Amino acid sequence: MTVVPPRIVTLTTDFGTGSNYVAEMKGRMLHARSPFTIVDIAHDVPAHDVRAAAWLVARACLAFPPDTLHVIVVDPGVGTARRIVWVGAGGQQFLAPDNGVLTHVLATLPFAACHAVTVPPDVSATFHGRDVFAPAAAALVDGIDPESLGPVASTLEMFPTPSPCETSRGIEGEVVHVDHFGNLLTNLPAALLPRLIKAGRLIVGDTEVLAVVRTYGEAPPGKFVALVGSQGVIEAAVVQGRASEALAAGVGTKVILP
Amino acid sequence: MTVVPPRIVTLTTDFGTGSNYVAEMKGRMLHARSPFTIVDIAHDVPAHDVRAAAWLVARACLAFPPDTLHVIVVDPGVGTARRIVWVGAGGQQFLAPDNGVLTHVLATLPFAACHAVTVPPDVSATFHGRDVFAPAAAALVDGIDPESLGPVASTLEMFPTPSPCETSRGIEGEVVHVDHFGNLLTNLPAALLPRLIKAGRLIVGDTEVLAVVRTYGEAPPGKFVALVGSQGVIEAAVVQGRASEALAAGVGTKVILP
Amino acid sequence: MTVVPPRIVTLTTDFGTGSNYVAEMKGRMLHARSPFTIVDIAHDVPAHDVRAAAWLVARACLAFPPDTLHVIVVDPGVGTARRIVWVGAGGQQFLAPDNGVLTHVLATLPFAACHAVTVPPDVSATFHGRDVFAPAAAALVDGIDPESLGPVASTLEMFPTPSPCETSRGIEGEVVHVDHFGNLLTNLPAALLPRLIKAGRLIVGDTEVLAVVRTYGEAPPGKFVALVGSQGVIEAAVVQGRASEALAAGVGTKVILP
Repeated sequence: MTVVPPRIVTLTTDFGTGSNYVAEMKGRMLHARSPFTIVDIAHDVPAHDVRAAAWLVARACLAFPPDTLHVIVVDPGVGTARRIVWVGAGGQQFLAPDNGVLTHVLATLPFAACHAVTVPPDVSATFHGRDVFAPAAAALVDGIDPESLGPVASTLEMFPTPSPCETSRGIEGEVVHVDHFGNLLTNLPAALLPRLIKAGRLIVGDTEVLAVVRTYGEAPPGKFVALVGSQGVIEAAVVQGRASEALAAGVGTKVILP
Repeated sequence: MTVVPPRIVTLTTDFGTGSNYVAEMKGRMLHARSPFTIVDIAHDVPAHDVRAAAWLVARACLAFPPDTLHVIVVDPGVGTARRIVWVGAGGQQFLAPDNGVLTHVLATLPFAACHAVTVPPDVSATFHGRDVFAPAAAALVDGIDPESLGPVASTLEMFPTPSPCETSRGIEGEVVHVDHFGNLLTNLPAALLPRLIKAGRLIVGDTEVLAVVRTYGEAPPGKFVALVGSQGVIEAAVVQGRASEALAAGVGTKVILP
Repeated sequence: MTVVPPRIVTLTTDFGTGSNYVAEMKGRMLHARSPFTIVDIAHDVPAHDVRAAAWLVARACLAFPPDTLHVIVVDPGVGTARRIVWVGAGGQQFLAPDNGVLTHVLATLPFAACHAVTVPPDVSATFHGRDVFAPAAAALVDGIDPESLGPVASTLEMFPTPSPCETSRGIEGEVVHVDHFGNLLTNLPAALLPRLIKAGRLIVGDTEVLAVVRTYGEAPPGKFVALVGSQGVIEAAVVQGRASEALAAGVGTKVILP
């Protein structure tokens, strides 16, 4: 397999923006001799929240040019036996702890290859982001073959993801992500839009959302609406408000499409 | 009109830094074939706060080299009939929803040209930042003529901005922005400094600020001061403290220069 | 002394990420004619907290390639008689107010040279970041000799830093930094690890931390642990929790290694 060296490297961590840790990673990556661009996806991932990071990366990576390298360091098991992996999928590259953080990526993009990254013996046990991920990213930017990072890996940790199912009340799914605006993103795919339009409503927890719209601004401020948003799934939102608070809902809240 | 392709693109949104939305915009922009630099102005604009974004962009754009493109996506009307516009003004370029967010820019920089951006029919109705603004920015980076983005637009939405006025009590203005340090920026221009020095005081809401200084550090910590700051307007501040809290003031608070 | 023009410029400020001030600095720096990369270290430094900034920069700078320029604007004395200095140390360059913010850098890297930056008479008195630091950074990027920034400076402000000392109870040090995860970083150097392992415990304030580990994930969630972390000092942490809260500790809390 030939892999094109990345010209763009994205970074997703739970290090926050007020610490020196993100800068230390970037400093090490910038030892690469070839020019490349660093793009922050997010550093505000809640500490140790592998599932939140998994969602962010899987959605964001779709927008990037081919051969982008996505480095993910949400890594509560740093320094333990958990592996670090390089994964090629759908023309994109990923460098991540093997802790499930690639679950949504692998459900979205066709898997191509995986290597376990050999960890040098002399690095810190608590900051592999700086001491393992960043040098590996720099080496990839400089044209190293991913195969030379370490042996082929044949399994990857995945966490279970809930699938919608048909019940007597309708199609039952759940909220899988709450975005910055408090919009509730569900696991009901955009393909269910005709059914949503026909039903004219979506039940989120204990609340019936009775307006189905094409975009937020089609209903007045404060109105509960259901729609297919930009992420390819059915969302519940409050126009210019926060659905997560108004509907007292969060990740895991049951959603029914009658 | 000839327009130089931007080598710098700034981004101002209300998407926050913990979501995938900013990264999706950057990923799409990075499909441009020409090299360019992305600069974040801010993503912490309060959700849907067009006026706050209008201030930030109008102040920040003045510091950038000519031909910089400023992309602004604070867009509560996304997907509705509101237009997206490309505006050339004062040698800078802007790509923004036509919702008033360019009001302060147009009050500061000489207007040169405006085009309404044609929205392709097949894009998401909820995320024009990724599906319309970012590809348009990439096309501009790659040398497309702004004219080809869409027809000339002859009007732009503007919100009313308060002007200071002379009253029996003095020149009456108001707080128009509270910065990160809690400093109160007013609509009283720097040209009023001689009068401020002569008066020796500034009335902010119910409080008289009695020290006029050249810079914050000229008075001891905790002192209320009035000065002409870096933004070309009269400010009220508390040395090493937060004037917004100490003076219980915010955007709209009346200010009188006796 | 010959100094290589920087190709990387880092930025550390207390301007926050929601204001126009960081963007104004970047816009001015981007007037440089030579290509360079801007890296944010942090803009969330608590307002006016020179000591917090001093720590962040001293730790982060070690990860960067030689000749990187680190610009630091945590500057409560802006516009007063405090000087602005360019400092060369350990192959890195720094541009900072002379207010102690380089204390930890100078304790870590060998000092090479220092120049006081001449402030032009016509700049704002409140925003030297934009009007003095950024143009000086751009000039350095474009190859100006640091000597031309201003005269040699022979003294630099330093704040006192506590040293660990041997007492009847053991080696007494203190917490010098709380990181984003709530981990407590002390002034006890990594060289004390054998003693830590032998003692098998660390006293933090009123609490005995009884597990000494190599990395966070070696103990179960919620466990108090002591370890040598990535910053070369002994840390106290709570596995997947916040030691600062669980141990009610912060900067200055006494730490004893028996």
